[in-house]
Amino acid sequence: MASEKVLAYLDSHQQEHVAQLCDFLRIPSISSQSEYADDTRRAAAFVADELKELGLKVEIADLGGHPLIYAETEIRPDRKTLLFYGHYDVQPVDPLDLWDSPPFEPVIKDEIVYARGACDDKGQVYTHIKALEAYIREGVELPVNVKFIIEGEEEAGGESVYTYTEQNAEKMACDAIVVSDTALYNETTPGICYSLKGLAYMEIRVFGPGMDLHSGSYGGTVQNPGNALAEIVAALKDKEGRCLVPGFYDDVLELEQDERDGFAELGYTDEILKKETGAPAAFGESGFTTLERMWARPTCDVNGLVSGYGGEGAKTIIPATATAKVSMRLVPDQNAETIAKAFQDYVMKIAPAGVKVEVENLHNAAPVLVPRKSDMMRAGMRSLEIGFGAKPVFIREGGSIPIVGTFQDCLKAPVLLLGYGLSTDNIHSPNEKFHLQNFWRGARTSAILMAEAAK
Amino acid sequence: MASEKVLAYLDSHQQEHVAQLCDFLRIPSISSQSEYADDTRRAAAFVADELKELGLKVEIADLGGHPLIYAETEIRPDRKTLLFYGHYDVQPVDPLDLWDSPPFEPVIKDEIVYARGACDDKGQVYTHIKALEAYIREGVELPVNVKFIIEGEEEAGGESVYTYTEQNAEKMACDAIVVSDTALYNETTPGICYSLKGLAYMEIRVFGPGMDLHSGSYGGTVQNPGNALAEIVAALKDKEGRCLVPGFYDDVLELEQDERDGFAELGYTDEILKKETGAPAAFGESGFTTLERMWARPTCDVNGLVSGYGGEGAKTIIPATATAKVSMRLVPDQNAETIAKAFQDYVMKIAPAGVKVEVENLHNAAPVLVPRKSDMMRAGMRSLEIGFGAKPVFIREGGSIPIVGTFQDCLKAPVLLLGYGLSTDNIHSPNEKFHLQNFWRGARTSAILMAEAAK
Repeated sequence: MASEKVLAYLDSHQQEHVAQLCDFLRIPSISSQSEYADDTRRAAAFVADELKELGLKVEIADLGGHPLIYAETEIRPDRKTLLFYGHYDVQPVDPLDLWDSPPFEPVIKDEIVYARGACDDKGQVYTHIKALEAYIREGVELPVNVKFIIEGEEEAGGESVYTYTEQNAEKMACDAIVVSDTALYNETTPGICYSLKGLAYMEIRVFGPGMDLHSGSYGGTVQNPGNALAEIVAALKDKEGRCLVPGFYDDVLELEQDERDGFAELGYTDEILKKETGAPAAFGESGFTTLERMWARPTCDVNGLVSGYGGEGAKTIIPATATAKVSMRLVPDQNAETIAKAFQDYVMKIAPAGVKVEVENLHNAAPVLVPRKSDMMRAGMRSLEIGFGAKPVFIREGGSIPIVGTFQDCLKAPVLLLGYGLSTDNIHSPNEKFHLQNFWRGARTSAILMAEAAK
Repeated sequence: MASEKVLAYLDSHQQEHVAQLCDFLRIPSISSQSEYADDTRRAAAFVADELKELGLKVEIADLGGHPLIYAETEIRPDRKTLLFYGHYDVQPVDPLDLWDSPPFEPVIKDEIVYARGACDDKGQVYTHIKALEAYIREGVELPVNVKFIIEGEEEAGGESVYTYTEQNAEKMACDAIVVSDTALYNETTPGICYSLKGLAYMEIRVFGPGMDLHSGSYGGTVQNPGNALAEIVAALKDKEGRCLVPGFYDDVLELEQDERDGFAELGYTDEILKKETGAPAAFGESGFTTLERMWARPTCDVNGLVSGYGGEGAKTIIPATATAKVSMRLVPDQNAETIAKAFQDYVMKIAPAGVKVEVENLHNAAPVLVPRKSDMMRAGMRSLEIGFGAKPVFIREGGSIPIVGTFQDCLKAPVLLLGYGLSTDNIHSPNEKFHLQNFWRGARTSAILMAEAAK
């Protein structure tokens, strides 16, 4: 349990911390749009300055993209070490007209702050900083060494944090990596995510005639790239959605019975799914519940199809080309490179006659599985239970956080995926928000974790 | 054979007629773009004025769209009657930067006139007007009654000419309808087209979730509209391109042996096809030559696919919707409405689970078959042979000219598809052109046809 003084500090500074968070949120640090490069640098300086003021040794690394902040408290070898990861950059704000208030002018309503980055990830990063501040300002001795790695390219797919981690594994050595970029299970139930799906993202390009042809003049004489692409994509999955790429399921770790039991207890129903998604029905391979498919079964989804004419009404052409983007979400122990290769081989094998087919592997991410039984996991669960005042559950996540795999590989330490947001917080969408209660509870949880991890 | 005086007039007025055609071509009568409405009206007036000057009774009908011109010479019951159809409107000119000279400033180079509408269809319409002028200016008695129906909505899919024809069948009564909107077989071989394909144009719309979903968060839980659409489209055709819609081939008239022989004599090879299209190979159902498939076999082609993300790189979504545009080119005696209905029924039957599927029939056109053995057909062939100085061939066309079906139905007269352009004249593309030799030969052919048809 953390010192009472530390928690009291957090309680008595709630409004001040919200005001500071709003200053942070006012900086439009959109990393993927070059016109915001100065703002992105300003957001990095905001974080660096706070950490410097708390007495940390702060390094601002320039690896060719946006600044990467690495910081650490005094390192005492007799203490355990926690490394906190987060990002200060934010998603673009389009479509702007769907925002109820300007994305970079934070508005607080009903104890919710609305702004781009409120939840993803400025608000969550800030909980850790404020937790550390509480120890330092109250003069309470830190139970652990604390390290931060805060990047500015998460939303732009930048490489800086990967390069830095590979080159500085010794400096970043730690007993656990804390990543707050997932979500609570729901409004009343905190959770630790112990598995992330990986990803193999593919693009299939089909080339036919040298230009769009008149479908009357040349219909019946050449292969149509649009039809050929549909044939390929249709052959990727069977009628119930199982992927047909050979070997796809070979390395899939089956769910353990206690995992299935845990998922079942969460009470997620197809009615909830339909309400959340607007889909007419749940759909997927038999033998698994919807939550099991969502969290623990690999997928193969079309992300985009483009061919020929997409405007209003009719245009009678045989398109010159057709393209599909297909993502496969992978689960432990599938290997993204192996799957991508199997996908390429399969598509080339089934490619219809009369067209040229290319398959490119755009990018990959490794799936993540964190053992549920460890001292650090127990410390995380206890901290959440105290910080949020509710019993936490183990959850998994269908999305990918590619850096987590790199942390595991390079730092050989367990990752605590401790999310304080909600899945309904509109990250990547208009009207992104963060519940202030979750902000405050998150800061308490981080402070408690520093104490619990030391035990 | 037409009077020597008439043909001599055409020969001695070649340059003057080209100059007048250029005046016609300078009018940017783009019917589908409302900013050109005044110009389109001006082009109608240009045609109407010429016909009035030749002494015809001219009617400019306003049926809610662009003006429709109907004109006729004195009608003498002892003469046969030819009805000439054409259009004075033109296609849009995008992409403008691919034109070597401005589309509405005609340029003549190497006896070729370059301008939008040069071939499609102002140049061809003008051959008939100039043929008639030759008779009238030379005071040679017309061998036939001549009627014109010249519309301004062909490139915009307007209804005026259909409505007018249905309401004025008696006035338009004739022994043959002459349509110059197809092409010569090639530069050295004239031809009469005796069959056009019909069309059933369909749009398949697949609806899944209420919005694009994160493919990680919801992958594996709902049907993906992109995958579902691919499944549907793939089921439309077999591996060699035969359409799988039940009953699709039931009413297809098999080619007669003399048609197959005629096609074979034309010497069209897959090498020519590959050169024309840039496709890597010829493709299509076995048992038919490429030309047989092009001209006489029904097709089923994707014209467009749209779903989810089509931009650069990766976006990880389950798209909310997916749409395909599919055109079926039909041959005699397929019925477009029957085929469209069979298509709808089939798609609804094979629609995958977990999505809502809609199929709309955007528009139809009936296939056309003109008997090759008739007095009018013989007159047409003779006129072409004399006018172009080369033996003409019978050809078919994979494209559709929907008004031809309406003419056949309402006027019960044979249609002579007498094209003077070339398939390489870039109609609907930048640098549209018309060979002046074909313009002059076309005018001679039209003049000769007026005499031959009277026999």
